[in-house]
Amino acid sequence: MKKTAVFPGSFDPITRGHESIIRRALPVFDEIIVALGDNAEKKCYFSLETRMKWLERVFDGDPTVRIVKYSGLTVDFCVKMNAGYILRGLRTSADFEFERTIGLMNKAILPAIETVFFLSAPEYAALSSSVVRDILRNGGDVSKFVPESISGEIHKKKSL
Amino acid sequence: MKKTAVFPGSFDPITRGHESIIRRALPVFDEIIVALGDNAEKKCYFSLETRMKWLERVFDGDPTVRIVKYSGLTVDFCVKMNAGYILRGLRTSADFEFERTIGLMNKAILPAIETVFFLSAPEYAALSSSVVRDILRNGGDVSKFVPESISGEIHKKKSL
Amino acid sequence: MKKTAVFPGSFDPITRGHESIIRRALPVFDEIIVALGDNAEKKCYFSLETRMKWLERVFDGDPTVRIVKYSGLTVDFCVKMNAGYILRGLRTSADFEFERTIGLMNKAILPAIETVFFLSAPEYAALSSSVVRDILRNGGDVSKFVPESISGEIHKKKSL
Amino acid sequence: MKKTAVFPGSFDPITRGHESIIRRALPVFDEIIVALGDNAEKKCYFSLETRMKWLERVFDGDPTVRIVKYSGLTVDFCVKMNAGYILRGLRTSADFEFERTIGLMNKAILPAIETVFFLSAPEYAALSSSVVRDILRNGGDVSKFVPESISGEIHKKKSL
Amino acid sequence: MKKTAVFPGSFDPITRGHESIIRRALPVFDEIIVALGDNAEKKCYFSLETRMKWLERVFDGDPTVRIVKYSGLTVDFCVKMNAGYILRGLRTSADFEFERTIGLMNKAILPAIETVFFLSAPEYAALSSSVVRDILRNGGDVSKFVPESISGEIHKKKSL
Amino acid sequence: MKKTAVFPGSFDPITRGHESIIRRALPVFDEIIVALGDNAEKKCYFSLETRMKWLERVFDGDPTVRIVKYSGLTVDFCVKMNAGYILRGLRTSADFEFERTIGLMNKAILPAIETVFFLSAPEYAALSSSVVRDILRNGGDVSKFVPESISGEIHKKKSL
Repeated sequence: MKKTAVFPGSFDPITRGHESIIRRALPVFDEIIVALGDNAEKKCYFSLETRMKWLERVFDGDPTVRIVKYSGLTVDFCVKMNAGYILRGLRTSADFEFERTIGLMNKAILPAIETVFFLSAPEYAALSSSVVRDILRNGGDVSKFVPESISGEIHKKKSL
Repeated sequence: MKKTAVFPGSFDPITRGHESIIRRALPVFDEIIVALGDNAEKKCYFSLETRMKWLERVFDGDPTVRIVKYSGLTVDFCVKMNAGYILRGLRTSADFEFERTIGLMNKAILPAIETVFFLSAPEYAALSSSVVRDILRNGGDVSKFVPESISGEIHKKKSL
Repeated sequence: MKKTAVFPGSFDPITRGHESIIRRALPVFDEIIVALGDNAEKKCYFSLETRMKWLERVFDGDPTVRIVKYSGLTVDFCVKMNAGYILRGLRTSADFEFERTIGLMNKAILPAIETVFFLSAPEYAALSSSVVRDILRNGGDVSKFVPESISGEIHKKKSL
Repeated sequence: MKKTAVFPGSFDPITRGHESIIRRALPVFDEIIVALGDNAEKKCYFSLETRMKWLERVFDGDPTVRIVKYSGLTVDFCVKMNAGYILRGLRTSADFEFERTIGLMNKAILPAIETVFFLSAPEYAALSSSVVRDILRNGGDVSKFVPESISGEIHKKKSL
Repeated sequence: MKKTAVFPGSFDPITRGHESIIRRALPVFDEIIVALGDNAEKKCYFSLETRMKWLERVFDGDPTVRIVKYSGLTVDFCVKMNAGYILRGLRTSADFEFERTIGLMNKAILPAIETVFFLSAPEYAALSSSVVRDILRNGGDVSKFVPESISGEIHKKKSL
Repeated sequence: MKKTAVFPGSFDPITRGHESIIRRALPVFDEIIVALGDNAEKKCYFSLETRMKWLERVFDGDPTVRIVKYSGLTVDFCVKMNAGYILRGLRTSADFEFERTIGLMNKAILPAIETVFFLSAPEYAALSSSVVRDILRNGGDVSKFVPESISGEIHKKKSL
């Protein structure tokens, strides 16, 4: 049976931390679906189209990575995509407390789906989309923090 | 002297976790007042009336549980109700950090009132009102997570 | 029914933190049994007799506090003493993680017994028997950290 | 070379916890700049003018404390002020997790600037501006929690 | 390429928590090697032979689980067994802090080997070998906490 | 007045993490005393002489670093050395919980002495003397983890 994992998020924007977790987890799974949450209630900094375009550019050429938009419960999306695993990164114990809550609730809703965790690399342990947005808002340079293939464009975006 | 405890919250909605803590703490106290916070600034998912009605239904027939609305400081409400204790559940160390802050501040304001903690049962360790609302928003089934007596109605509520 | 709580520990030696939790919890219970663990495998700094004598001196005159030695499982001791509650203090989230493990295991072994937690007072948040022993070993003054009624003797003990 | 530290915050309002950290850190540095963040997107309870005035009153007469408004990245402000250090207090491990993220990101952006931490005094371990605002909103007395020189005025403010 | 994971431990004794993590992770890997650490310096409660025998009995009939003794560094053992992954369970944030240290050091020593984490089931969140040993030492019943196939024998062991 | 900080530890052995904290803190203080604890009760992996020699070699040529053996309470040693500060590094929230206990107790014993904390660099966030010893015991290579000037000798030491 094909081993498919879903890596859910808002990716507002995708960071080098996200990219690193996905690339390191690729050998474990036959396919990783990067699931871009389309949540009407959550106000994002970048549009859904931009976030989608960036995800596609970062994983362009990786045949085992797919980018798919979704709304609704993550476990329902897993069922729809025939995915048995949810993939998550862990940076800190604050992360862990948050992820455990989500992971245990997902398991309570649908026991068949397992969440699998990878440790963030130390150099990305303090990196998050929200930190990147904060730096952008304050006119800082985020090129070290986002994937190389989008770091040029994210700055033009900002300067508009 | 009568031992009265206040269990404060928004109960938006009440979960099986809340219900479990209250029932387990009942033998310790002569009365537990479930104190429904009426906070104009906090936007709730369910109306005050609905939350009140559900609390009353869940503890209908428990002579030592009273449901009372309140606004203002919790310690002021305790004084008004002649309650010497605040009752809280602890699920995770993130919970603990939050509850310690509240508990120590309450004690700094009014040293006579003690906060008493019970451990959440393991099966409710990841359960919270906010998780329940999140599942509802995404069209999921929350019947396992809220008290039996309201699980039917919470779904109709959602489908309206 | 009489509400009895057991406060278990090695009390090697009793600190002002222990004393504070017990005194603050007294109004909740009809009796608190300070249960001095007699664990042959654990090497203590002070003898069982000394620890016992000090506990008795500290709570001398409190008719609702009893000092009892015990060995074996704490829950078995609770059953023997007809106690429905275990009392514990919480200083930090490290404490909480430790106490949750013990508390959940005790509940798994004997569901009828509840653990009830009080928050340590801020001034005792860093105080523990092991810190007191460490200061004693290094020739420091612990009189601020142990109950007044034993602080004189603990120093003579040390100087012997 | 002059050792200058920046203590950044919203100070909405300044608490006795803030004041304590700054006074205790004064002997380490030649100058501490209390940097009042002027963030258009963040809605504050007290106006920038009021917060500024209160900071100035609290440190009036301390020749090595300066109060300066700033916007943009904290590290950029440090460069502008010729400050090599950021000063922060640590109350709890939740604090630590948050501060580590900020501190490591600041270091990633500008490695020359070091964040230096002091432990909050135990009596202020649960105190924060947000707790003070919460008490004010609920009509409580915050005079024990804010510096003496502003405690009179903060109440009149509230009663307006 | 065959996906092999190593699940290292002392298994003194194996608990239902260990068993649950291994069984849940089986679909992700082609083989899981339960690696029984043979550490001369660590004093174990049960002999290496007994621990080995119990592991073999628990996973008897699982063709994709192998039980192997090892000494030395876990990453060196992985290389020897041609295993690209280390499998670990996470119960609490204290666990996480410990596992992150080990996981990051293993990655620093041998970057090619990834640690993959699963969340402990809530009913095993407080369970550990050390708790089981503690109950045994105090004459308690551990049959709920160890795999069914060994629960009979572990008691006889104790009573000897 | 001269600003002197004490950096206490067993340094069994000194790691790159220790070295990094000390070097980064040098500009804040006029002198840093690396205080090598000579604790008869604690069994160390390397002899006091070896640990002393290594510390001296690592900071050879740094006029503002002194290496001094000490026993007794750290605060008493500070007084003796006329040092007003204790310097510590923080890696994780587990570290923080531990350091807060020590820091608050030191302040309770001697309020005049402040503990000042620096964040560990991300690449050293999982590094500790105990991890280094563990790798050595298992025949691994620790040259990446200890200061360059001692990495050659630590291996010869091991192979003896």
